[in-house]
Amino acid sequence: MFMNYNAGQGELKNWIVEETAFDSAFQGKCEVVMSQGNGYMGARSATEEKYVGQVRNLFVAGTYNKFDADEVTELPNSADMSAIEIFIDGRRFHLETGEVSNYSRRLNVKNGELIREFTWTNTEGKSFEMRFRRFFSQANLHLMAFDVQVKALNSDAKIEIRSGVDAQLSNSGAQHFHEGEKRIYDKRFIELLQHTTESKVDFVFLTSHRYLVDGQETEIDPGLQMDRRKVWLNIHHDLKAGETFGTEKVGVVHTSRDKQFDVEGYELQALRDHALTNLKNNADRSFDELLEESAAEWDKRWAGMSIQIGGSDFDQLAIRFAQYQLNIFTPMHDSRFGIGAKGLSGEGYKGHSFWDTEVFMLPFFIYTMPEVARSLLEYRFKTLDGARKKAKDNGYIGAQFPWESALTGEEVTPVWGAVDIITGKSTKIWSGFIEQHITCDITYALWQYYQITGDQKFMDDMGYEIMFDTATFWTSRLEWLEDRDMWGICNVIGPDEYKEHIDNNAFTNYMAVENIKLAIRYYEDLETSNPKLLAKLSDKLNLIEARKMWLERVDNIYLPQPREEDKVIPQDDTYLQKEIIDLTKYKEQPFVGGLFQDYNLEQVNEMQVSKQADIMVLFLQQEDKFDLETKLANWNYYEPKTLHDSSLSLSTHSVLASDVGNPELSYDLFQQAASIDIGQNMKSSDHGIHAASIGGMWQCVVYGFGGVRMLGGNLRINPNLPKEWDSLNFPIYWKGERLEVTVDQEQVRIERPEFNGQALNIEVAGEPRVIDSTEVTFNV
Amino acid sequence: MFMNYNAGQGELKNWIVEETAFDSAFQGKCEVVMSQGNGYMGARSATEEKYVGQVRNLFVAGTYNKFDADEVTELPNSADMSAIEIFIDGRRFHLETGEVSNYSRRLNVKNGELIREFTWTNTEGKSFEMRFRRFFSQANLHLMAFDVQVKALNSDAKIEIRSGVDAQLSNSGAQHFHEGEKRIYDKRFIELLQHTTESKVDFVFLTSHRYLVDGQETEIDPGLQMDRRKVWLNIHHDLKAGETFGTEKVGVVHTSRDKQFDVEGYELQALRDHALTNLKNNADRSFDELLEESAAEWDKRWAGMSIQIGGSDFDQLAIRFAQYQLNIFTPMHDSRFGIGAKGLSGEGYKGHSFWDTEVFMLPFFIYTMPEVARSLLEYRFKTLDGARKKAKDNGYIGAQFPWESALTGEEVTPVWGAVDIITGKSTKIWSGFIEQHITCDITYALWQYYQITGDQKFMDDMGYEIMFDTATFWTSRLEWLEDRDMWGICNVIGPDEYKEHIDNNAFTNYMAVENIKLAIRYYEDLETSNPKLLAKLSDKLNLIEARKMWLERVDNIYLPQPREEDKVIPQDDTYLQKEIIDLTKYKEQPFVGGLFQDYNLEQVNEMQVSKQADIMVLFLQQEDKFDLETKLANWNYYEPKTLHDSSLSLSTHSVLASDVGNPELSYDLFQQAASIDIGQNMKSSDHGIHAASIGGMWQCVVYGFGGVRMLGGNLRINPNLPKEWDSLNFPIYWKGERLEVTVDQEQVRIERPEFNGQALNIEVAGEPRVIDSTEVTFNV
Repeated sequence: MFMNYNAGQGELKNWIVEETAFDSAFQGKCEVVMSQGNGYMGARSATEEKYVGQVRNLFVAGTYNKFDADEVTELPNSADMSAIEIFIDGRRFHLETGEVSNYSRRLNVKNGELIREFTWTNTEGKSFEMRFRRFFSQANLHLMAFDVQVKALNSDAKIEIRSGVDAQLSNSGAQHFHEGEKRIYDKRFIELLQHTTESKVDFVFLTSHRYLVDGQETEIDPGLQMDRRKVWLNIHHDLKAGETFGTEKVGVVHTSRDKQFDVEGYELQALRDHALTNLKNNADRSFDELLEESAAEWDKRWAGMSIQIGGSDFDQLAIRFAQYQLNIFTPMHDSRFGIGAKGLSGEGYKGHSFWDTEVFMLPFFIYTMPEVARSLLEYRFKTLDGARKKAKDNGYIGAQFPWESALTGEEVTPVWGAVDIITGKSTKIWSGFIEQHITCDITYALWQYYQITGDQKFMDDMGYEIMFDTATFWTSRLEWLEDRDMWGICNVIGPDEYKEHIDNNAFTNYMAVENIKLAIRYYEDLETSNPKLLAKLSDKLNLIEARKMWLERVDNIYLPQPREEDKVIPQDDTYLQKEIIDLTKYKEQPFVGGLFQDYNLEQVNEMQVSKQADIMVLFLQQEDKFDLETKLANWNYYEPKTLHDSSLSLSTHSVLASDVGNPELSYDLFQQAASIDIGQNMKSSDHGIHAASIGGMWQCVVYGFGGVRMLGGNLRINPNLPKEWDSLNFPIYWKGERLEVTVDQEQVRIERPEFNGQALNIEVAGEPRVIDSTEVTFNV
Repeated sequence: MFMNYNAGQGELKNWIVEETAFDSAFQGKCEVVMSQGNGYMGARSATEEKYVGQVRNLFVAGTYNKFDADEVTELPNSADMSAIEIFIDGRRFHLETGEVSNYSRRLNVKNGELIREFTWTNTEGKSFEMRFRRFFSQANLHLMAFDVQVKALNSDAKIEIRSGVDAQLSNSGAQHFHEGEKRIYDKRFIELLQHTTESKVDFVFLTSHRYLVDGQETEIDPGLQMDRRKVWLNIHHDLKAGETFGTEKVGVVHTSRDKQFDVEGYELQALRDHALTNLKNNADRSFDELLEESAAEWDKRWAGMSIQIGGSDFDQLAIRFAQYQLNIFTPMHDSRFGIGAKGLSGEGYKGHSFWDTEVFMLPFFIYTMPEVARSLLEYRFKTLDGARKKAKDNGYIGAQFPWESALTGEEVTPVWGAVDIITGKSTKIWSGFIEQHITCDITYALWQYYQITGDQKFMDDMGYEIMFDTATFWTSRLEWLEDRDMWGICNVIGPDEYKEHIDNNAFTNYMAVENIKLAIRYYEDLETSNPKLLAKLSDKLNLIEARKMWLERVDNIYLPQPREEDKVIPQDDTYLQKEIIDLTKYKEQPFVGGLFQDYNLEQVNEMQVSKQADIMVLFLQQEDKFDLETKLANWNYYEPKTLHDSSLSLSTHSVLASDVGNPELSYDLFQQAASIDIGQNMKSSDHGIHAASIGGMWQCVVYGFGGVRMLGGNLRINPNLPKEWDSLNFPIYWKGERLEVTVDQEQVRIERPEFNGQALNIEVAGEPRVIDSTEVTFNV
């Protein structure tokens, strides 16, 4: 048990994730779980000193680059400033030599600070108290800071610290940067200027150090060093017994992708000057001062989004951890960028945005930070041209969003994946070609956003355009099913990615029909509410023609229905006819993907085995379209055949379990989902944070246990508190107004702190209610 | 003391370099000193398991690639097959955990085998005897083989071995390969196909494994794995107490740069097939069988080049080590390639060829392996077009060889180097622009080759052309010195690289004049001996005009003369007027380049401080042009001002010390030179082997102590045996005939094992002698 959840005391109770021992075999875990960032950039928390197996990553949102013509664009692994190597009496300090005691590494999710401390005794018997701290600033998105303190406990020692900027890193071998230009100004300000190879983004990395002896700033004349892609200082100090030597390091990163520089007439020198000014303005400030400034921003965030769970310390910490992550990996500052499927915490999925954003993470933002939700939807709007290109390239019309999306909305899903154990070749990844439901997922999500926030301006500026053009895509995508005399959607991958090239995936068909229906409905709306806008959109999107096709086809699209005998909805045209195999072995394995050590995808495709929720996600999205009996029947049929090999699966099942009135199961699945990253499995997070699962945790709490849902434009709050919890308190924003919901085993209280006299009609605990004061309580 | 020289016993006495303890801080040392190769390819001997600070390198001669337009071409770090990771009961094996005993790593320079063995006890108390062996085949230049044996001493254990091909490596961040194509045939033959990014060289890496339990081959069904740029097997075995599990791995590398494929009509598939065939032909053969085949080739090499030193085991081992290295890093198989300044053992100097080849390494080959010497000179001939381009680009005519040379003879010296501590910027490297003596060094070397071998065909085919066209370059390069009414050579760097932009460097001027004189002399020769060839060359090289210029200028070129007062020859026009500083501090430092922590190059340029031998190299090259008194005077003046910051310096000084009759000093310097790589300094070889110094060691022994020299076309053998040696025996080839020279403190014996009745007139021990039998002995 390396992970401890009780390290936070007093004010910090349930705010601290702690690692209690160091093991180089498990570095990936806390590199990711304790990753830091601010949406502008994010980094794995690899230790200052190096170990085999470590992955050092720094990603700056939106700075995609393509290494090679036949590869896809990805977030480049940027130069590392977090490596701070310590040499004691000429020997490299690391924890695999000597003795370590009192080890603790703690991520404070309240203020974003990471602290690592321990006592280390080298093989000569010299003991040192060491403390490492770091954070990425929420107040200055370009800034990160580090603090290294070494106290000699029992003897003098020569200490050397090597610290600077190291750009020898790559993305698993793919190098995205030119060599660049190195410079040390005034023996203090280290600069590395680099450019990405294909996207031509300029990066300025700058860092400076302050030196402290027993807390007093001191001057040191460091050795200056340069190597390929690397520039650093050798900092020497003769440490006396009892003395503490501290090095505080500030790093800043600015790029030509930054909004203010990504403009006509941009000049590199202006970027360099701007970056150097930022560094110089902060170089003489202490770590604590900079941290405080950042922590104040975190306080504001928490005031807006805080969730209180009574009765379970772990769950309280887990939901805070999830919200911490949602805050550090989301590029809230810039609507040109989406969220990566691994946030900014690893190379996994290359920093690309998937349906994970709209279906798993967006709900948190819609209900809690609507301006961020808007920014994320705006990102999709800004990629419409890429989506139109994709539709056109595939012979369709309208807008077809890419399965994986980067900066332009063009398809960036890689084509080759893991080994096929039968052929010995790389397996072809079909998602970029035929996993198409993303397009209706986005429209459904923006409709949710619209209904919950009432943001008409967004709809006028962006929402309708996406809605109409995706509907057009879907109608052009339909194929005529001769056998059924209906339209269908053939040759797709649904949410369950273990089924490729299938016809009429239930999720896809239902969601596509919804997409078209929304377009029809809002077209009609606009005819009366805003004919001018409609005319404009009609011009641009050729809506007269398009609408004709929507109307012609929408009512004759095949939607798989529950079978008469058992209410099971066929996941696709052939799933239910496939072979059923014993999955016990794979369900028991503590890792995912074990099936592929025995079968290749072609074989798996012919079995009733699912990677993840499929029909279940449909139930979650269109909750009011299916009755309880159908939901239960399908749960009982599909869940045993589902390996949950995708981290997207558990939270969906948890919310569904709440929906079907099984809070125990729901709670169990929530805890499993919560454990994916911060649990005791030390190998589960190596490739990066499970961003969708993190978003799903919020859904488990607020959708599942809180029972919140927007259905048909109306708010519903039907709590299903698990017996393990005494109470649950969370904020949601409804039509721009903050509501605070407090649930316990007997009651639900709705507070309207900004109550303006206007009554609010919502469903609470199964009944329509009127909330017409600052606080109303109902029995559940 | 990590290095031991007495590990070899019996037949292996003085053939084994041993490391007696492992310390991850000193990995570079034995990675380099124990590097392996066969001229086709070479690798640092990084351990099978990984440690921080390790440098894993595999270089294939001649496969240069340029990462970026503004970088220079370099040997790309190719995919690694030497990493073989062992997991015991799920934990990664490495020597920084648990307990290690009986550690020994031994390079056998006789057969090229590297053996590492030890007993390791993990933290659970399970003990294992481990043995790792590897070699690069001399019989099959494309093949390397590994053998890993793990014996469980006291308990059962689950063992997992992860082994395959890993191309995530780069050259300090510069990636030279496209991602490539991965494939596993028959669950056994792992293939990675890659292409360099700019030079478009195709590489095929292939590997396969055999598994042995207690020496008996066994079948294992491995897990197949692929990642970016990486393909490998997970090999599982349940090891019983007392049982030994062995994995033998064979790897082959073939490239489209290989002679047989670098042709018109080349097809990638043919290369792949050829490589796979080579692997399959060897996949079922045992490590020992493959090793034996390679060792037989080594035996032939040693029969040709063996040197016997009586009286010092270390010196005997040291010279064998030097010859081992000369054999593994020299691309003897292909005259399109030169020798890298770090051989094939590191990224240092990017695999480029310098004057190091001709001045420091070629003498060994000329006297011992003339066919290899010829190949190396042919390499220069093949780069003549590049040299002509360089001359032309600089406004000269003829051929100007590049300071650093790769495949084409175009200049490839990088332009930016280490930090300038004053400006904080990278220091500009001027060598590629103005370090020009390489051009006369090459001509002088080929003349040596011609004189010693009598290889007239080489001269006819290549030698004259180089000689004439370089002479033409030099005459066009001359500048008129108004103050002296003579021609001079201004703005150069001589061998002493701490003096930039100097005029009339003595070494350069003397050697350039010699170059022109040789051209004049052999032009005249050809007029009578081969007018037809002369006419052909005259046509091609415009010799009528050229010769006019040679003759006009050669006798009026300024050659710095010894000063009347002290016989000191000015190293250049200004050296002797510069400031003299106290160098004690820098001479005492155990590392090189310390001066630049206090001064920048601009400042050093204004001091009488030398990096390395300069005038001394001139004395060595043109030994008969300077008298003893002058040599001594200059030694006494310049040596105290020389930091020997270049590894090229010590051997030159050692030979010179022999020449001036100071064998003690000579011996001391030889031992210093011998210690640069295999000595006890564990940090001296990190960037790669000191190839020139290695070549210099042979010169110390044969030129210095053996007193061998070709002077004016005649052979001279004036031994100066150090008192520490009882005897010295070495072979030399003179005009194609093998001579064996045996020296002791009293006598020198010359053997002519192939004596054909023709008398040989040479100088031995100071007198002209006639060798007219199979064995003649003289007193010294």
